[in-house]
Amino acid sequence: MKIAVLGTGTVGRTFAARLAELGHAVTLGTCDPAATASRTEPDAMGAAPFAPWAAGNPGIFLATFADAAAGAELIVNATHGAASLDVLALAGAGNLGGKIILDVANPLDFGHGMPPTLLVKDSDSLGEQIQRAYPAARVVKSLNTVTAGLMAHPERLPEPGTVFVSGNDSDAKDTVTGILADFGHRDVIDLGDITTARGAEMLMPIWLRLWGALGSAEFNFKIVR
Amino acid sequence: MKIAVLGTGTVGRTFAARLAELGHAVTLGTCDPAATASRTEPDAMGAAPFAPWAAGNPGIFLATFADAAAGAELIVNATHGAASLDVLALAGAGNLGGKIILDVANPLDFGHGMPPTLLVKDSDSLGEQIQRAYPAARVVKSLNTVTAGLMAHPERLPEPGTVFVSGNDSDAKDTVTGILADFGHRDVIDLGDITTARGAEMLMPIWLRLWGALGSAEFNFKIVR
Repeated sequence: MKIAVLGTGTVGRTFAARLAELGHAVTLGTCDPAATASRTEPDAMGAAPFAPWAAGNPGIFLATFADAAAGAELIVNATHGAASLDVLALAGAGNLGGKIILDVANPLDFGHGMPPTLLVKDSDSLGEQIQRAYPAARVVKSLNTVTAGLMAHPERLPEPGTVFVSGNDSDAKDTVTGILADFGHRDVIDLGDITTARGAEMLMPIWLRLWGALGSAEFNFKIVR
Repeated sequence: MKIAVLGTGTVGRTFAARLAELGHAVTLGTCDPAATASRTEPDAMGAAPFAPWAAGNPGIFLATFADAAAGAELIVNATHGAASLDVLALAGAGNLGGKIILDVANPLDFGHGMPPTLLVKDSDSLGEQIQRAYPAARVVKSLNTVTAGLMAHPERLPEPGTVFVSGNDSDAKDTVTGILADFGHRDVIDLGDITTARGAEMLMPIWLRLWGALGSAEFNFKIVR
């Protein structure tokens, strides 16, 4: 598939590299491609400069959010949750209509100390906000419940965990579930329509505390049943 | 131990029966013992009338919240989360000081349709509210993340899941962890101080949606790491 990954941080890069490895045509979307390509310092979240990574991944193209989305059949929202709606506006409604938006972001608010809180609580979700803003797009929430490396390589854990999909469009969820299977995810639970993204996003409070208690982000939730 | 279980619904009864089976001296606390004992209809949450259950559990005594708490070393808050602070006020601060309060309740708000939302979000928790209201008590949040039957009998699942403890007092968490082990819980993660109850309580949004998607409450979260 032609896939645009919006966001050039750790999540975006990890996602893009894994999709390219699986044979997809991947474009990374960013605000200012020239600035991203020339940056020599780590970004605000600590991700290493882009150029060395890009040199090691020559098949992945860098473009503006709009150009990346325009050429894609599926769009991955790998931006910070607080910025996601602004980024999708830059991508442009005309480039999103009818397409699958795989939303892996978490709407975290770092403005009140650590650990961060959620910008939207359990009466709404970022997934729903994106679906409402782009009603012609087909939003699927998934993979926001694991760290970037485990999104792409779940086999790093000693046994399979569970990941979730939420969305209004069954075909879009099937497409995403196929990609999840290609990534190596063996247990995918369809939670239901996009409002169930509230459940997946509100795993963040315990995810953050488990990260603290375990001293590592290398864990996943397995639903034993 | 002498243990008071506050609340005579499904959670309270299940907890009381399991503790009694393990040899503890258990008193069930209720608002009006005579009314509870004579009730012949299911309660608002669908729990069967109390008398037949009590007849099958002759070693478990019924008392007012205050009398139950007065005689106990450990107090289990098995009330509905929306009522917990009122119930603990009836139990009386003088009967709670220095004691362990094992809080297994979820602060659910049924006032906005189904599924319910949380009365307190990720900048507070019911566990913290109880700890603030009774600073001399030692609050431990645990077991709110599984259905009543699995709190008491985790072996009903095909493999062990994970349960969590949150609290400020290490000795109190050790005591609770011992009870959890007696119940059969094999994987207990200490999340940290009582503020980490925010994580455990905010598992409810996905718990409720998994209940819907799976059509059963017989599941648990296992932290694969």
